[in-house]
Amino acid sequence: MSKILDKINSPIDVKSLCGADLDRLAAELREEIITRVTANGGHLASSLGVIELTIALHRVFTTPTDKIIWDVGHQSYAHKLLTGRREQFATLRQYNGMSGFTCRDESSHDPFTAGHASTSISAAIGMAVARDSQKQNHNIIAVIGDGAITGGMAMEALNHAGHLGKRLIVILNDNGMSISPTVGAVAKIFSRVRFDRRYYKVSEKSRHILKRTKQGSRLWDFGQRIKGSLKRMVMPTTLWEEFGFAYTGPIDGHDIEEIVAALEQTKNYSHKPSLIHIMTTKGKGYAPAESDAVHFHGISPKGSPKKNGHGQHLPSYSEVFAATVEKLAGDNPKVMVVTAAMPDGYCLGQMQKNMPQRVYDVGICEQHAVTFAAGMAAEGLIPIVAIYSTFLQRAFDQIIHDVALPKLPVIFALDRGGIVGEDGKTHQGIFDLSYTSLIPDLIVAAPADENELQHMLYTATQCGQPMVIRYPRGTGTGLNLDRELKMIPIGKAQLIREGSDVLFVATGASVNAAIEAAGMLEEQGHYAAIINMRFINPLDTDLLREMTRSIKKVITIEENVLSGGLGSRVALFLEITGIKDVDLRCLAIPDEFVKHGTQSQLRADYHLDARGIYQEAVSFINQSYQTDQENNLISNHIGS
Amino acid sequence: MSKILDKINSPIDVKSLCGADLDRLAAELREEIITRVTANGGHLASSLGVIELTIALHRVFTTPTDKIIWDVGHQSYAHKLLTGRREQFATLRQYNGMSGFTCRDESSHDPFTAGHASTSISAAIGMAVARDSQKQNHNIIAVIGDGAITGGMAMEALNHAGHLGKRLIVILNDNGMSISPTVGAVAKIFSRVRFDRRYYKVSEKSRHILKRTKQGSRLWDFGQRIKGSLKRMVMPTTLWEEFGFAYTGPIDGHDIEEIVAALEQTKNYSHKPSLIHIMTTKGKGYAPAESDAVHFHGISPKGSPKKNGHGQHLPSYSEVFAATVEKLAGDNPKVMVVTAAMPDGYCLGQMQKNMPQRVYDVGICEQHAVTFAAGMAAEGLIPIVAIYSTFLQRAFDQIIHDVALPKLPVIFALDRGGIVGEDGKTHQGIFDLSYTSLIPDLIVAAPADENELQHMLYTATQCGQPMVIRYPRGTGTGLNLDRELKMIPIGKAQLIREGSDVLFVATGASVNAAIEAAGMLEEQGHYAAIINMRFINPLDTDLLREMTRSIKKVITIEENVLSGGLGSRVALFLEITGIKDVDLRCLAIPDEFVKHGTQSQLRADYHLDARGIYQEAVSFINQSYQTDQENNLISNHIGS
Repeated sequence: MSKILDKINSPIDVKSLCGADLDRLAAELREEIITRVTANGGHLASSLGVIELTIALHRVFTTPTDKIIWDVGHQSYAHKLLTGRREQFATLRQYNGMSGFTCRDESSHDPFTAGHASTSISAAIGMAVARDSQKQNHNIIAVIGDGAITGGMAMEALNHAGHLGKRLIVILNDNGMSISPTVGAVAKIFSRVRFDRRYYKVSEKSRHILKRTKQGSRLWDFGQRIKGSLKRMVMPTTLWEEFGFAYTGPIDGHDIEEIVAALEQTKNYSHKPSLIHIMTTKGKGYAPAESDAVHFHGISPKGSPKKNGHGQHLPSYSEVFAATVEKLAGDNPKVMVVTAAMPDGYCLGQMQKNMPQRVYDVGICEQHAVTFAAGMAAEGLIPIVAIYSTFLQRAFDQIIHDVALPKLPVIFALDRGGIVGEDGKTHQGIFDLSYTSLIPDLIVAAPADENELQHMLYTATQCGQPMVIRYPRGTGTGLNLDRELKMIPIGKAQLIREGSDVLFVATGASVNAAIEAAGMLEEQGHYAAIINMRFINPLDTDLLREMTRSIKKVITIEENVLSGGLGSRVALFLEITGIKDVDLRCLAIPDEFVKHGTQSQLRADYHLDARGIYQEAVSFINQSYQTDQENNLISNHIGS
Repeated sequence: MSKILDKINSPIDVKSLCGADLDRLAAELREEIITRVTANGGHLASSLGVIELTIALHRVFTTPTDKIIWDVGHQSYAHKLLTGRREQFATLRQYNGMSGFTCRDESSHDPFTAGHASTSISAAIGMAVARDSQKQNHNIIAVIGDGAITGGMAMEALNHAGHLGKRLIVILNDNGMSISPTVGAVAKIFSRVRFDRRYYKVSEKSRHILKRTKQGSRLWDFGQRIKGSLKRMVMPTTLWEEFGFAYTGPIDGHDIEEIVAALEQTKNYSHKPSLIHIMTTKGKGYAPAESDAVHFHGISPKGSPKKNGHGQHLPSYSEVFAATVEKLAGDNPKVMVVTAAMPDGYCLGQMQKNMPQRVYDVGICEQHAVTFAAGMAAEGLIPIVAIYSTFLQRAFDQIIHDVALPKLPVIFALDRGGIVGEDGKTHQGIFDLSYTSLIPDLIVAAPADENELQHMLYTATQCGQPMVIRYPRGTGTGLNLDRELKMIPIGKAQLIREGSDVLFVATGASVNAAIEAAGMLEEQGHYAAIINMRFINPLDTDLLREMTRSIKKVITIEENVLSGGLGSRVALFLEITGIKDVDLRCLAIPDEFVKHGTQSQLRADYHLDARGIYQEAVSFINQSYQTDQENNLISNHIGS
């Protein structure tokens, strides 16, 4: 039987389908997405949850004239399949392939580029101002989940939307769960039926009493219906109307007809912002994902787990982090963990179970997470803030203003530092060494391996100063972990290897690549010394001075943009101390956004893997400068 | 008559006063604050508004055991006077004197350092977790204004507070006005009586009709009372209870007895977060401030306005910004201005009146402001985001993710870049060149004077790329402004002066200091060449290469931290291009937080004024290196 999807070349084709075909289309989309994502990896559960919504949106609206803005963009796979990108879908999240998020460069049907949460309503309001000021008349729709809507900037935007009163539609995709179960009072209000604890408490008691008899049981069911409809009628409507929105809902998010009806009605309501509240099931139609949406939020491509040479499981950096932190918390009642909707990414599930009072998940609220931790530290606790490198960008001001300035001992554990791989441009952790090392009084460390990670965490809990610990996505080298945790002297680098021809100054995961490169060089008769620059700030200038007395060629190696990172700091050191007889090359990410691909492919592209470092070293030993490095400063990408 | 204030040595003394003395104390505090702030400058209206609240807080609670967290901290003058800091109060905001905000270093009665808005509730929750985990029992009170509470991170915190359910008190200080009139739907809900537009509309109509007759007039008054009490009874209580807070209010914020009663009642309510809603008048007790709280939010010390040599008014950078932007908007319907509660600081009042549809004030919501502008730019508009350098730190991620990555032509006008003066550590704009120039595809410019500012703004609206324009607080040199706006070539620096002994590479306001220093050098027979480095990114490496062929001593000059700024970028250029025969010195802010004082005093401290530059140049010409610059990289302040 031919597929309906085969006939869909653009969203226009969705409009001409008859009603019965729509359910088939939904099933086909579901199948296509499950097949592809289980092969390529990606965000499975979110995309499965909005298939019916996506079809309904394209039935009612006409992109690219109408603008559909998917918050985060990780749930846009069906949208991609319906907007002329089915052929490329096989390349999802692959090198040179299709992005896993919405992207203006990829399609005119993606009006806004995304990846981080909570931006869609702000963008929609801006677009509404543009539309009205340019006397256009199209529709603007932001689709946002119940996790993302509680992020601060989404709340700011809701507030402004209600104030401005421009026509736009916000679709609240309420699956009762963001990446981890949604946190907070607002979530409770928004998805009221499931989350109102008062009702739950009463319900539980009443259920036990009433269900004992048949009559009681009927009364119970009746009561439940009344409760539901009462709340549905009164509560959210009032709240949203106070916010300045016309409210419709809740709608069954897997009933295309019902969604279409709500959209049609709202589309014609043209005088103010509208909110449509739809209820969906994350992972809908794929049993493993429905029952465990947290673990099926994002999945890895098929493949066996990584093992070391002895066939043992290689722990990831995240696993080592979680185990260490649980140990530290066990030893010291002052140690707390604060995360922003990422307990799973940080492998904190076990600790949450074992020590529920020691792990605080604040939801997608990075700003609050940091200042909340600062409040803890101000009163004597030792909080560890667990936020990915790219997401901590959201709390840049709070790190400066609430932590570094008052010198409060907050520890930042930045997982996914450096090249992260398939999530691409929006998610690479390539700015963190720069944006943290420019902040006064903040220690910035990058362990070279998972063993050093555990010692760094211990050191941070002991030193009483604000400190960043940045480490990569994925597994380390699989070396044995020391049983005893020990202090690492702050600001001291480690000389890993002596050598005479070239000095590698590497940090973080690049240290191991440098070690491997040194081995390759040795086979060619060249000898590289290696500094493991454990701290970007403070920089170990003593060791640099000592080593550059005898070695006159230095290569810095880091998974970070060149501007403001390790290479920049070493260059500044050489200049202001007047060390003239040393030649410097900086291996780093040039000042550009890094596309998606495997970590190893991307590291190869930027000469940040062992082979790349080796090649750079050979060419450096044989000549002197590589003037095209200057391009980083005149930034090709600007003004061209 | 002796003053009551003379007997207050610590907050304990406030508790022993009799009731009648409290009003006298309030009057004395008011007098002391007005006298001091009109002399020293400072935040007058906010502090006058909370005098009664401050007294009541110290009657009921016992600091430093109990923690009072003043959001922003600019309203804490009465708190400072009552907590043993009266003697230092004469030094308010002066060099080496008392801070204008709350500061942990200044007093144990300041449990949290502040300056930026919306942080207090997050800090309070963190402190509540610390208290409970350490089995302590004190009270924690966050005092936050109706403007700051709508900031995204405050909303995140409210949400989390309700979810956690820890005992803490939030006092909503509702004066119906933050720095500029409060924006948004939430403000409307929170301060319901004043802001509910539906009621206002009905009210206005009804008033006209009813007030025509005496009976009608009575009916009107009755209706008003009913309306008020109905809303008071139902609306906010419900909302706050949904948020998980126990609500008390509204309370007359100038009635000490009433506030004390509410605080006592709430203090004893010990099982969840409480919110006390108090209504205050900003500027209370000082007629000029009561009637124009916006202009009396922050005031300058007494003194005559700046004039140039011909006795004409010297326009500030902010005034030139506003005049230019209004002109650009008049010429091009696509130009829009977005500000985050700072229309007054940007002198946009006139434009708001003349072109109300072209200026969007989103409230204290920097994150939303940037992405809102990105939405506009995505649909063809040219938005100019007007946010101070220090506050734009709040939107760092949005600049990266929503503007630079998709290369949307958003213009950022960063007023108060560099040393800002009396507002001190939390407000210095000394990180912006670093945190913006590390972002790929973002042009970073700093005009040397107010004439260049207008041309830069014009250039930005023409070039179609994301661009930062950073300029200082205060007045420029008073030079004539060109009538015709012109394009400045992107990435090209300007050679201002030829010379042979030393090359000044200066940016922004430092260019004029460099010119003056060059004049002083010339009197000593030394000749300085000067580059006006208009762009930090892209850097004009061609001109640097050309000039360093003949001049072998280079001094970079910038009002920015050394890490990642102009000096760092020039150092990197010299290193990676192998220019060995040039000696570099970097004049910048060392990596530390800069305290408060006058701009000229602080510039002198850091050798960033003409005399400092001159002295550095003389010593440089006569010797070679100043090795203590290295301290910036090993960051004295860390690990010591």
